Amino acid sequence: MDLFEKLQHDRGPLGKHSNIAHGYFAFPKLEGDIAPHMKFRGKDVLNWSLNNYIGLANHPEVRKADTDGTSQYGLAYPMGARMMSGNSNLIEEFESQLANFMGKEDAMVLNFGYQGIMSIIDALLDRHDIVIYDSESHACIIDGMRMHIGKRLVFPHNDIDNLKTQLERANKMIDPAKGSILVITEGVFGMAGDMGKLKEIVELKKHYSFRLLIDDAHGFGTMGKTGAGAAEEQGVQDEVDIYFSTFAKSMASVGAFVASKENIIEYLRYNTRSQIFAKTLPMALVVGNMKRLELLRTQPQLRDNLWNVVRALQSGLKEKGFNIGNTQSPVTPVYLSGTESEAAQMIIDLRENYGIFCSIVIYPVVPKGVMMLRLIPTAEHTLADVTRTINAFAEIAEKLKQGVYSKSLTNISI
Amino acid sequence: MDLFEKLQHDRGPLGKHSNIAHGYFAFPKLEGDIAPHMKFRGKDVLNWSLNNYIGLANHPEVRKADTDGTSQYGLAYPMGARMMSGNSNLIEEFESQLANFMGKEDAMVLNFGYQGIMSIIDALLDRHDIVIYDSESHACIIDGMRMHIGKRLVFPHNDIDNLKTQLERANKMIDPAKGSILVITEGVFGMAGDMGKLKEIVELKKHYSFRLLIDDAHGFGTMGKTGAGAAEEQGVQDEVDIYFSTFAKSMASVGAFVASKENIIEYLRYNTRSQIFAKTLPMALVVGNMKRLELLRTQPQLRDNLWNVVRALQSGLKEKGFNIGNTQSPVTPVYLSGTESEAAQMIIDLRENYGIFCSIVIYPVVPKGVMMLRLIPTAEHTLADVTRTINAFAEIAEKLKQGVYSKSLTNISI
Repeated sequence: MDLFEKLQHDRGPLGKHSNIAHGYFAFPKLEGDIAPHMKFRGKDVLNWSLNNYIGLANHPEVRKADTDGTSQYGLAYPMGARMMSGNSNLIEEFESQLANFMGKEDAMVLNFGYQGIMSIIDALLDRHDIVIYDSESHACIIDGMRMHIGKRLVFPHNDIDNLKTQLERANKMIDPAKGSILVITEGVFGMAGDMGKLKEIVELKKHYSFRLLIDDAHGFGTMGKTGAGAAEEQGVQDEVDIYFSTFAKSMASVGAFVASKENIIEYLRYNTRSQIFAKTLPMALVVGNMKRLELLRTQPQLRDNLWNVVRALQSGLKEKGFNIGNTQSPVTPVYLSGTESEAAQMIIDLRENYGIFCSIVIYPVVPKGVMMLRLIPTAEHTLADVTRTINAFAEIAEKLKQGVYSKSLTNISI
Repeated sequence: MDLFEKLQHDRGPLGKHSNIAHGYFAFPKLEGDIAPHMKFRGKDVLNWSLNNYIGLANHPEVRKADTDGTSQYGLAYPMGARMMSGNSNLIEEFESQLANFMGKEDAMVLNFGYQGIMSIIDALLDRHDIVIYDSESHACIIDGMRMHIGKRLVFPHNDIDNLKTQLERANKMIDPAKGSILVITEGVFGMAGDMGKLKEIVELKKHYSFRLLIDDAHGFGTMGKTGAGAAEEQGVQDEVDIYFSTFAKSMASVGAFVASKENIIEYLRYNTRSQIFAKTLPMALVVGNMKRLELLRTQPQLRDNLWNVVRALQSGLKEKGFNIGNTQSPVTPVYLSGTESEAAQMIIDLRENYGIFCSIVIYPVVPKGVMMLRLIPTAEHTLADVTRTINAFAEIAEKLKQGVYSKSLTNISI
């Protein structure tokens, strides 16, 4: 059959809702400087949907570094892949800073996080190797593993007993002369906010031979005494063999990095396909990211401010009886029960009448009948923002309980 | 066995040379504004290694747009994936401009080309579909197909008879009620500079049912009457079903786009994993890219300048007896015979004594005993640059013939 005809009928799990979702529930436009208060469809909203955790996006020193870096280098320089023509002293200096900060021997800056971790997983593994991963791993990890032609084993989210079972299975399957085992999990899971059980996983190294790779997108800059992430928080930084984080969350930027032993990073420099066959990170972003890292390291009060807001928000929601699951990080999910239509009506009410903008997650990401409102507090939010939000949530939850929101999808009008 | 121990011994095809290559043959640093004349290890070099085809990287209007865009938006805005919180009026306007320029119904801007095309291939195909691709396709296409669990058939580079055979094979394998066929090739092949035989491929649509996706990274901005690429050059723009190009070559920037029918682009917006699960292109880059597209469209003299240099370089090399293969584009390969060591010594001579910097490609990219020097002319090069380069090439080729360069790898010292 014809491919285009097929795609016209099968629009995919999200695409099939595009006619009612587009521009409002999907592809909304938040305008103005990145901050708790922005514009949505011309109206002011109190926004809890951006991962600008420690408030770097619009920090005056960051804005100045971004502009200065662009003024000096433009957005084109350097051109070409890092290996061919895109290398620079400045990116190497930035890599040293990242390695120092993470307490690792070396670090490699990546042109983009998604393709970066995909190719890292691809580069690390050959067909003899077995990868074992947490079932709630991010799409970029899943896509990286889809290129792996060896065995892939999954353990249910944070289920350490099951991970042990998978390690035993892997040991039976593997050719010990050729194959090795890589375990992949996340530092902080971005949907529910709980941490990967890194300490428990690292404990298993006493009994099983494997290396551990973590994606700490939401932990870097928010967790740990110095902000070095979830492994620092759990006291197992040295036992995480390969540490990966994007710059797209706390760093409020673009790009990513991986940190590990020097010879592993050197291996990755020469074998990571998305890096050796694609353009390097623009220099202006290297300059901007160096300033962000400096602030993240030297201004712990940014993280203190974040956690003050996090604690007020999470304890306030719990006091009002809300179920916020098992979050251990700033990511704050609020679980409610209702149909898809009720979820949509509630979000409209929240945005239009309360002026509050947050993401909502429904089936199939959460079970049918569950809706998850996801709040991302930042260092820039105020306690007044928190109070206003908790009060609004109490009201909409009560309306939901009273059946005020229509259970039928046909009634939505904005 | 232990993964890290394994990687310590198996360094990969490029990594095994890192001790002699690093910083000179691999990961060199070109410093200064992007232009034909830059610095390498503190010395002036005439540089033929950057894909800044029409000279936009350092164009004053581009530099101004880059700085103005960054000054207005910073490098953080917008945050989040396009679908969640990263959408904007400006990116939609840019997409309209791209669609108009390409003569397609719609276009979608991608946060990065490599992961963009990978996920596009992934999104378009299900397990019933068969993909047929040119054997010299870029790594990003190969990696995209590696995620495809259905059949993959390859045809030898630009071999249309063999493509016919593959189409017939595919038609026998496929379930016509469920499966469809996608053919993938490139507009211009970045190594040898020849075009994909788009016209011949499109002719096959009269006899076979398939859709055609092309990656026109090196054709966009350089080929065709208006610069719309290799399909325009061959008069088959309308028959290319899905057109992809990065912004990393002629556009001298970051990001990419895909153009096609409106409902296919809408499908891709909702189903392309690297786009729905990763951060959108920063607004400053949207602003900078819009200026680049404007110049690319309105200043055909940039392309004329490029082709003046291309013609002088390619005809001059041919007059001196050099084999430049079958290039039909600005990409100018020069094929010579010699060992890896001779190639290395020759490049050192070229850089240190002639002050000319270009890329060299050796086995396994080209057959053993072949070395390919790859020259990328741009609109900014002068005819004096061309003459100087041809003369230098004549001298080093003569030295190579005379056996001046050591055949042994141990003699390299820089």
